[in-house]
Amino acid sequence: MENKLNLVHEYIPLVEARMREQSNGYPPDLQMALDHLLDSGGKRVRPTISLLVGNMIGAPKDRLVTVSAAVELLHTATLVHDDVIDGSLLRRGNPTLNARWSPGATILTGDFIFARAAKLAAETESIELMNMFAKTLSVIVSGEITQLFQSKGLASREDYEERIYAKTASLFEMAALAPVFLIERDETLIQAMQVFGYQVGMAFQIVDDILDFTSDQTELGKPVASDLRQGLVTLPALLYLEMFPDDPDMKKVLAEGNGDEAFIEGLLKKIRQSGAIDTALEEASRYIERGLDALNQMPESKERLALEQMASYVVDRQL
Amino acid sequence: MENKLNLVHEYIPLVEARMREQSNGYPPDLQMALDHLLDSGGKRVRPTISLLVGNMIGAPKDRLVTVSAAVELLHTATLVHDDVIDGSLLRRGNPTLNARWSPGATILTGDFIFARAAKLAAETESIELMNMFAKTLSVIVSGEITQLFQSKGLASREDYEERIYAKTASLFEMAALAPVFLIERDETLIQAMQVFGYQVGMAFQIVDDILDFTSDQTELGKPVASDLRQGLVTLPALLYLEMFPDDPDMKKVLAEGNGDEAFIEGLLKKIRQSGAIDTALEEASRYIERGLDALNQMPESKERLALEQMASYVVDRQL
Repeated sequence: MENKLNLVHEYIPLVEARMREQSNGYPPDLQMALDHLLDSGGKRVRPTISLLVGNMIGAPKDRLVTVSAAVELLHTATLVHDDVIDGSLLRRGNPTLNARWSPGATILTGDFIFARAAKLAAETESIELMNMFAKTLSVIVSGEITQLFQSKGLASREDYEERIYAKTASLFEMAALAPVFLIERDETLIQAMQVFGYQVGMAFQIVDDILDFTSDQTELGKPVASDLRQGLVTLPALLYLEMFPDDPDMKKVLAEGNGDEAFIEGLLKKIRQSGAIDTALEEASRYIERGLDALNQMPESKERLALEQMASYVVDRQL
Repeated sequence: MENKLNLVHEYIPLVEARMREQSNGYPPDLQMALDHLLDSGGKRVRPTISLLVGNMIGAPKDRLVTVSAAVELLHTATLVHDDVIDGSLLRRGNPTLNARWSPGATILTGDFIFARAAKLAAETESIELMNMFAKTLSVIVSGEITQLFQSKGLASREDYEERIYAKTASLFEMAALAPVFLIERDETLIQAMQVFGYQVGMAFQIVDDILDFTSDQTELGKPVASDLRQGLVTLPALLYLEMFPDDPDMKKVLAEGNGDEAFIEGLLKKIRQSGAIDTALEEASRYIERGLDALNQMPESKERLALEQMASYVVDRQL
């Protein structure tokens, strides 16, 4: 990632500062909580996309920093609520907020971060951006609710795509599109950046889902194939099911969830050997290609090149 | 309330509809949840204020309905999260969402309603309104976090005022002020409506806190003096403490929380007989008077009269 980040490396600390200053004037406990969350890191992929797009199109620097901070805070707030809902105690190897605080304090901190992300979005003074902010949050949250209520094991390709759009691609779309609303309205640009963000976001989540099958527990920081263990079908399992619709082990895991470790290992081995992983990776590459097609409507620039490299990295990355 | 509502009675169903349609196109479970919450009622005090102010100043009808719905949905979302945090199973005599759903689904539904309230605020196309929306949410949530972390029993008058501003007056302020941003900017009007909303909201919460001491359990739907039982000091208890700073029963309840029923009843009797309730009521009346002073800067109109009546009702009301 070094090359891409170099182009915006002077901006990232400004985005960090913009995020951290959102607790200024609020109770010290909130300041501690926000700092803890931001100290825990994350690759800042979303604000990096916003910064690169913004610089590519000449968006005003200060509002670009504000938008990038809004995007990352929105992401952060959703993670805080996800962790309290799942009862997760670790994220990126660091204790989650709910590992230290009560569920109540954690829920409210998530709400506070939503509020501050909305405040930053409002500060850009773009109505379109505010609209997109609210819509993106609706999509993310309703996707999670659908997942909670949907009967497991019955996912179709369409369900899967809807789910990863809500979970990941909607916010990538916002990250790429938001800076466009800081300059004079340009329909071609809007269209291009929306497609770019969408396609890269879809690929990003597919690769995440692939890594869940191909990495080991140490790398993942959680058991391999954790979705499948919960009866949740992601692309590799979906492709395997398309090849072997009557596989009894697959039927069993989807009907009953978690089997014993030897059983899961056996099923994983079959999925890995089936070619489903490669097919999934090819699918991710096609998303990236469509994203690059959209990006390449823009004039050549070093930022465009960095976005291209970033898009390729999405498919090539390890964890 | 009939008189005041008559003036806006044709608008209230529009506000209800605007709120309900926020789940259109989203999963049926979300639609059910939103309907359940809105069916459970509530007096719609906040949107009524917005509607009266909006009509008084000639705000455009459609956007006024949108703003009023945004205000009430913001309120609704905070209640959803409050109930899951407190584990409350009833609100206004109806089962809360978390009485029926998992905490996770309830948290996400609250998030969804925040998102839809933000969407409605954005639809007004007023940057000031969006800013106020985000700021109000920050204030409400950070107030709740402060309350979670603050050591009980040590509340000063200043702490109390800060708490009821965050809890109630901030949203009343928004309800009265938001419609102003739908018409041409008018600093006098902004100032007047901000003061009106703030003062009426402060009075509203003080009266709520008084009713917690003067009503009986059947009326309240929860034990009398529930705040005090949790060691939380509201105005009547604060005034009693100012009169009798060394009262050993008060010290005991603040140090240890919940005592036995006879003990609490004894303390309640002392507070009721001390004159603290009347003094608190006088304080609420002074807030209302300041609110009316601000309101009376507006030209006379039937809406102004209705707002006056509504403000008086805040102090005179029973539950």
